[in-house]
Amino acid sequence: MIRGKVNLNIPTNLVFKTEGITKSVQRGDVIIVIDVLRCSSTIVTALANAAEGVIPTKTVKEARALRKKHSEFLLAGERRGVKLKGFDLGNSPLEFSPQKVKGRHIVLTTTSGSKAIISSKKAKHVFAGAFLNVEAIAKATSKIAEREETGISLVSAGTDGQFSLEDFICAGAIAESFPATVFIHSDAVLAAILAFKQAKQSLKKVIQSGYHAQYLISQGFEEDIKFCSQLSIYKVVPFLKGGTIVSLEKSLSFC
Amino acid sequence: MIRGKVNLNIPTNLVFKTEGITKSVQRGDVIIVIDVLRCSSTIVTALANAAEGVIPTKTVKEARALRKKHSEFLLAGERRGVKLKGFDLGNSPLEFSPQKVKGRHIVLTTTSGSKAIISSKKAKHVFAGAFLNVEAIAKATSKIAEREETGISLVSAGTDGQFSLEDFICAGAIAESFPATVFIHSDAVLAAILAFKQAKQSLKKVIQSGYHAQYLISQGFEEDIKFCSQLSIYKVVPFLKGGTIVSLEKSLSFC
Repeated sequence: MIRGKVNLNIPTNLVFKTEGITKSVQRGDVIIVIDVLRCSSTIVTALANAAEGVIPTKTVKEARALRKKHSEFLLAGERRGVKLKGFDLGNSPLEFSPQKVKGRHIVLTTTSGSKAIISSKKAKHVFAGAFLNVEAIAKATSKIAEREETGISLVSAGTDGQFSLEDFICAGAIAESFPATVFIHSDAVLAAILAFKQAKQSLKKVIQSGYHAQYLISQGFEEDIKFCSQLSIYKVVPFLKGGTIVSLEKSLSFC
Repeated sequence: MIRGKVNLNIPTNLVFKTEGITKSVQRGDVIIVIDVLRCSSTIVTALANAAEGVIPTKTVKEARALRKKHSEFLLAGERRGVKLKGFDLGNSPLEFSPQKVKGRHIVLTTTSGSKAIISSKKAKHVFAGAFLNVEAIAKATSKIAEREETGISLVSAGTDGQFSLEDFICAGAIAESFPATVFIHSDAVLAAILAFKQAKQSLKKVIQSGYHAQYLISQGFEEDIKFCSQLSIYKVVPFLKGGTIVSLEKSLSFC
């Protein structure tokens, strides 16, 4: 690393609510949308299993309209954690197997994550991050931020705009993987790094203690929590390109 | 502890912005206002050094008016960290020595902490918490919450409404000292506990890395950071009673 880069002091920032995204976009930050349970984890898994692209929509109506227009698209998503009527898939990453998603476009509408991604769409660089792809997302986004001398905003999509334990810890995991000498972390990012460091030895157990995990477990999704708690098992970097989330490796020569 | 109490499931909550206090007050929560750097630490120190009471005001004008009415009151506070013109004391806890404050009433106006305390004044129980009195504040407030079957809101007063590293960690320190079997922590409180557990071995160093600590250091207040990073050195429990913060032990028979 050359000395000039060491002194860049690129700011990182943690955004808790969708409203905060506007400021991040205005600053020209690289955006990483984190919705561990389960939107981001599902997107990462779908792309890792060779889906062609994931198209997030805010509403169920938009999702159905897209499918009507493109009958070859898979329709996926949830409200209150549960698969929607007539949809091919819910929002459980375990459903997004290579057999089901390889080569397919998937329309995805979820309570929080899809909306946060769409709220970020005016940004030049929008990514989806989860525990599943921590190392890959940290590497790709920090390279872009260094090259373009922009900040990075980690967006904790949360549940209904509430503070989310798993998203906060995941933000810390990603920030901990950034090159330490190049970035200046905000207080919230510093706190998230501390929380991740403390949590990482028993990540699944910690995530299970969170509010949304408890709700998902009550709905029969305990296996999803286990799956989504795995660190860096995928190298895929989901990147928003013209309204569709695609694998960065496939779409561009950033890395 | 009797079995009934074990099953109380008292909710704890972390409030990041002053606006959030209203909901906590409406729910009837016990409120703990945390402004480690430095309002809460100053209040704790003043009362530990036998000040009679601390009267928080939102504005400098109100503070001056109170002093005009009561010439025996000490006038203390800051804006942007710096002591105000004509004031007896700033907002550095190190200034609040027994020699200066014993038996005195102190009017205190600060950028964040005083305002958060005043915003909470409609609550039945409002306390000030800092690292300096973690054990005492956790013990006193958890007893009240158990007895009255109310929740507890930890209010991170922050700086200008921003996320504050030191207040977040202090909230975690206090929550960690609550009886584990009685309380149900929100996601933010769980995250704060994780952050505190990770930070506590090098608390001073971690707090020094925060945004507001860095600002205070640049203004020559490095010793304040060291002082405010000490865990549970005082047993004083500052409690708001009729607009004045007094020592709970002196004023009531709660503990």
